[in-house]
Amino acid sequence: MCELLGMSANVPTDICFSFTGLAQRGGKTGPHKDGWGIAFYEGKGCRVFQDPQPSVDSPLAELVRTYPIRSHIVISHIRKANRGKVDLKNTHPFLRELWGSYWTFAHNGQLKGIKKEALGDYLPVGTTDSEYAFCWILSKLKKKFRTRPKDENLLSSEIRILLSQLGKKGVSNILLSDSKFLFAYCSTKLVYITRTAPFGEARLIDADMTVDFRKHTGQKDVVTVLATTPLTQNEIWTSFLPGEFQVWKEGKLILRYA
Amino acid sequence: MCELLGMSANVPTDICFSFTGLAQRGGKTGPHKDGWGIAFYEGKGCRVFQDPQPSVDSPLAELVRTYPIRSHIVISHIRKANRGKVDLKNTHPFLRELWGSYWTFAHNGQLKGIKKEALGDYLPVGTTDSEYAFCWILSKLKKKFRTRPKDENLLSSEIRILLSQLGKKGVSNILLSDSKFLFAYCSTKLVYITRTAPFGEARLIDADMTVDFRKHTGQKDVVTVLATTPLTQNEIWTSFLPGEFQVWKEGKLILRYA
Repeated sequence: MCELLGMSANVPTDICFSFTGLAQRGGKTGPHKDGWGIAFYEGKGCRVFQDPQPSVDSPLAELVRTYPIRSHIVISHIRKANRGKVDLKNTHPFLRELWGSYWTFAHNGQLKGIKKEALGDYLPVGTTDSEYAFCWILSKLKKKFRTRPKDENLLSSEIRILLSQLGKKGVSNILLSDSKFLFAYCSTKLVYITRTAPFGEARLIDADMTVDFRKHTGQKDVVTVLATTPLTQNEIWTSFLPGEFQVWKEGKLILRYA
Repeated sequence: MCELLGMSANVPTDICFSFTGLAQRGGKTGPHKDGWGIAFYEGKGCRVFQDPQPSVDSPLAELVRTYPIRSHIVISHIRKANRGKVDLKNTHPFLRELWGSYWTFAHNGQLKGIKKEALGDYLPVGTTDSEYAFCWILSKLKKKFRTRPKDENLLSSEIRILLSQLGKKGVSNILLSDSKFLFAYCSTKLVYITRTAPFGEARLIDADMTVDFRKHTGQKDVVTVLATTPLTQNEIWTSFLPGEFQVWKEGKLILRYA
């Protein structure tokens, strides 16, 4: 299995603290040493860092832990390979362009029979179930809507249906973004926390590190972090229900379906 | 204008030396300080590092200069903005998937009237002429060939025609790759050098740095580097002719049309 990390914020925010916790699980406090990746959205731009090496001793992960890249949406993944060998082409998050936006996708789980589903305009480059599932989602969306639908609820509803169809094929925890929204689907394990004023201190579970958010945030900041399991030991994280779908925008939960 | 750097090699090779030279031109020995990017192919996998900051003082560029990522094809670009503001979404190289492979594209020049051309399955995310041109190329290729043509000469010939059509719209020096080949088109400025045994020493023009390739290479290595202008002062680089198109594979020139 793998682990996921996501962020949605109303101001450009760095993820150094949370990523430090996650990266430990890539070979130190956790077994997810078959590569890792992270996508940062900055406006409509998106940059993805990927490394087939364990995150705990990757110079690139060291950079991501220490160089604050401020972003409004982040999707990250550390991998314990089950389907598809350890290889850059199999490293999440995956990226494609749809309707003039970059979409990224990270997945935790296994999807039985997904490769029997027909694809359309999007094809996988690697051999994972996960990338195949991502191409299937985008192929379906593009076939249904030649251009982006104006009604965002319609888009969310369509995505919810597709993600819950994947959920029926096995374990499937998903983070997906189009640069505007962060979509999350939980089949077995996903938690979140929203940090707003008054901010306090947080202490990582996986590393001896504490941050005082009062020193790094403004009064109006709203920052939500999603993860497979809680990353901090002194805060209360909320668990998703099995089958729950959430849509986040600027740190706020704007749609929930459980 | 911008500067380009490309590499094609028959063994996974790092680009630290050449990139060190290029990165100096991003704010120190050259004025190209409106961002930079680099795409590394490792098998079918591809990772792109991008930064809207000047390469000369970017921590990410520092990593690329010092952390040897071994690759068989590299495309890099440092930007001096003319069309499209300084922004991550406007930073080359651009990446898209076509026929189950990652394609990347970097461009130096300006293309008059390109945005009047109709696009198909690929849309730009940013506002540059260059990304628009890339989407136009891929849209044309996908429209003509639903799946990758078996005859690679046919593919090269089609790409040559598209790149020379772009060449008629203004200054247009291009590096393009599909993970198998490195395609290069020169409208005004592009040079290359192929290094094979017996290897010697090379000295950068833009930084006080010398490398002895004998210490880093095997007897059968073939490594070709392409750049806007020569990066080393003691080697002979060959200039492209205006309108010249080249296809490189594993360090070797396999097709040339001038």
